[in-house]
Amino acid sequence: MTAKIEIAPNSDRELVLARIIDAPRASVYRCWTEPELIKQWFTPKPWSTVRAEMDVRPGGSTLVVMADPDGKEYPNPGLFLEVVPNEKLVFTDAYIKAWEPSGRPFMTVVLTFEDADEGKTRYIARVKHWTVEALKEHEAMGFHEGWGICADQLEEVAKRI
Amino acid sequence: MTAKIEIAPNSDRELVLARIIDAPRASVYRCWTEPELIKQWFTPKPWSTVRAEMDVRPGGSTLVVMADPDGKEYPNPGLFLEVVPNEKLVFTDAYIKAWEPSGRPFMTVVLTFEDADEGKTRYIARVKHWTVEALKEHEAMGFHEGWGICADQLEEVAKRI
Repeated sequence: MTAKIEIAPNSDRELVLARIIDAPRASVYRCWTEPELIKQWFTPKPWSTVRAEMDVRPGGSTLVVMADPDGKEYPNPGLFLEVVPNEKLVFTDAYIKAWEPSGRPFMTVVLTFEDADEGKTRYIARVKHWTVEALKEHEAMGFHEGWGICADQLEEVAKRI
Repeated sequence: MTAKIEIAPNSDRELVLARIIDAPRASVYRCWTEPELIKQWFTPKPWSTVRAEMDVRPGGSTLVVMADPDGKEYPNPGLFLEVVPNEKLVFTDAYIKAWEPSGRPFMTVVLTFEDADEGKTRYIARVKHWTVEALKEHEAMGFHEGWGICADQLEEVAKRI
């Protein structure tokens, strides 16, 4: 299980998930950027991740397809805005490819990976929304629980690779 | 006066302005990236551009402040997404700095500068919106006339620098 860290959001449109992950940051970064690894941790069970494609560079597209227990698929297209290997990833659903606007700009995710003691990683996800309403919708969808479960699943994968 | 080129939009959420500008593309690019030059062409008279700041790199902020004839100021903050010197500029008002969402994501502008005959520049602005409604609003604000006047003003500056 990951350990929680208390980090305040920078605005009333930002949700934060922060954890100490028991794996080095290069492993955590790999979990976020390699499709075969993403599929192992990205979705809280009994949902699953059935497909992942990612062109990991600024302006590169990403597509993660989740499936519910009945097999119904939910594609999540997006775009990388900033990539600093083993340190930082920024992506958004506001574009589906460079630079085509999506149907609805909902969030921009800023992930940072920092060294913590004992070879662990200080993992911070700042999830920024265009409106307070979008943030509330994301909270109501179970942001904190969902991203928390996924952080634990991510740790399991990062520890063994 | 610039010469019009007919270029079709890629979607029903895109407005296009395309012109042959009688100046080399390095000069046209300078007009878009140097604050002192921007102030000379960016606004159709009797409006004016009173201030311009630009950090020309992916993730760099831009701020252009326009003023109406009574001196009332209208700030336009935005962010560069892609920068290829003398070739391409992409910016959006969806962020005010890297990576803080703005109050309203309205448009993303993709500018391309290509060599044309006789040392001229094939100048294409693709202005992409998140919704058809935003495009219609932009058209009703006088997009085609306004950007056309500005392209002529840009040419005047680009020819003499």
